[in-house]
Amino acid sequence: MPGNTALVKGVGDDCAVLDLGLIDRQVLFKTDAVVGDIHFTKETPPAKVGRKALARPLSDIAAMAGTPVACLVTIGLPRGFEPEFVFKFYDGLNALAREFSIAVAGGETTQTKGEIFASVAVIGTIPKGRAISRAAAKPGDAIFVSGDLGGSISSKHLDFTPRVREATWLAENFPIHAMMDLSDGLASDLRHILHASRVGAEILSEGIPISRAAKLQARNESSAKPPLLAALTDGEDFELLFTVPSKEAVPVLDGWKKRFPGTKISCIGRITPEPGLRIRDKQ
Amino acid sequence: MPGNTALVKGVGDDCAVLDLGLIDRQVLFKTDAVVGDIHFTKETPPAKVGRKALARPLSDIAAMAGTPVACLVTIGLPRGFEPEFVFKFYDGLNALAREFSIAVAGGETTQTKGEIFASVAVIGTIPKGRAISRAAAKPGDAIFVSGDLGGSISSKHLDFTPRVREATWLAENFPIHAMMDLSDGLASDLRHILHASRVGAEILSEGIPISRAAKLQARNESSAKPPLLAALTDGEDFELLFTVPSKEAVPVLDGWKKRFPGTKISCIGRITPEPGLRIRDKQ
Repeated sequence: MPGNTALVKGVGDDCAVLDLGLIDRQVLFKTDAVVGDIHFTKETPPAKVGRKALARPLSDIAAMAGTPVACLVTIGLPRGFEPEFVFKFYDGLNALAREFSIAVAGGETTQTKGEIFASVAVIGTIPKGRAISRAAAKPGDAIFVSGDLGGSISSKHLDFTPRVREATWLAENFPIHAMMDLSDGLASDLRHILHASRVGAEILSEGIPISRAAKLQARNESSAKPPLLAALTDGEDFELLFTVPSKEAVPVLDGWKKRFPGTKISCIGRITPEPGLRIRDKQ
Repeated sequence: MPGNTALVKGVGDDCAVLDLGLIDRQVLFKTDAVVGDIHFTKETPPAKVGRKALARPLSDIAAMAGTPVACLVTIGLPRGFEPEFVFKFYDGLNALAREFSIAVAGGETTQTKGEIFASVAVIGTIPKGRAISRAAAKPGDAIFVSGDLGGSISSKHLDFTPRVREATWLAENFPIHAMMDLSDGLASDLRHILHASRVGAEILSEGIPISRAAKLQARNESSAKPPLLAALTDGEDFELLFTVPSKEAVPVLDGWKKRFPGTKISCIGRITPEPGLRIRDKQ
């Protein structure tokens, strides 16, 4: 891969990390795209498409405990698109940008003959050397997830609030070892941390926070996954997955509940020296 | 538009300018996209698509006299795409990145049901307060363009080298007032400078550097534009358009010819206090 001395961390983590010569901070850099008929449908309200287009890369900035600063938007539009789509797309995107004081620093439109797509690039900052990677989980660490998991597709994937505040609070107050955001599903994403950190994990099935949406789907649709499987394998949760030294587990739980009383936090298991992911049922 | 105190310049120029707290530099930020069946065809060699996907936003970094540092790539791919396309796309993109010492800091792929698209985000830097905008042309300024104009679609739009070196050299050695890159065609792009700077311009038709491609097209295709019209209105030239105080015109010409002997530079006219764009034939 072509390099530049400013590149601290490239491919393989939630964001790229750049050292541009700031005395005390580094720069985080991330792009992501949403595509019609894949990430949203013709029925999705355009404001929710715009919100999600920004929320996805923000979730990656959060995953490294960064603070987002500015974003740029590129929308691909077919001939004969509804101008209303663009206005409402930006209503949704701008509202989320305002919530996190992010500058919408520009927007391009380009033509496409296919589905609408929107690509959003985000710049953030992080105190120097404090970006939290996926690669530093240690045996004995307690493993946590925020929120509830599974069934996101029924609505949460369009409405979630990226965990920017929670992640910066965690990083400021606790020695977080490894962190990432859940986009492919807990079982798959936790494996990324395990591989990158060269460790294993043991998680307790009873500890996994299963969403109401996953339970409802299992009850109402005969073809739906069992709720636990949904929580383990459904994508687009956009929650935080992180590890801390075990002695910090109780302070993290207590501090979180005080600081973010509306958001669940769950200790789901621990990091082991043996590689592999083991899911255990309590006896 | 949602803002952030770091935002120095947002919508309306070639790049966004951010002040992230660097002592002596600011950050430039730009995204652009290329889309199948619009910016390239099924016959375009994938390496040239990758090259162009990066070259376009680099041309915008050049337009503000910035130095590119890192880029991120998002490619949208239909089901059943040729993996070979992606490898060759990156061959072309990486070669250009290496030429300018730009880190390719990450790459996402996403699914699409339409045409292939590729969005590239670039971060660059610029000495503090030295980003050259479109809005500072002054009456009396000499107007310059680099290279030859028109007929880019016959091949140059896939092969051009963004004028990064030329632009930083100009900014380091001359008091450049206004600058942008030519993407929509000279007549249209010059108007952006005139509007932003609240001035007018008089250009001499004989001064406009017409490309060999535009002349060939006019000779070989009965439906082609006359060469001068092609040079004025064809898009995708990706040359520099800039203005300097008239007393600097000869030093710019002399210095450029010495420093970049392989690349044409042309003085095409001057900025006037009266608004509007006048194109004159020499008598």
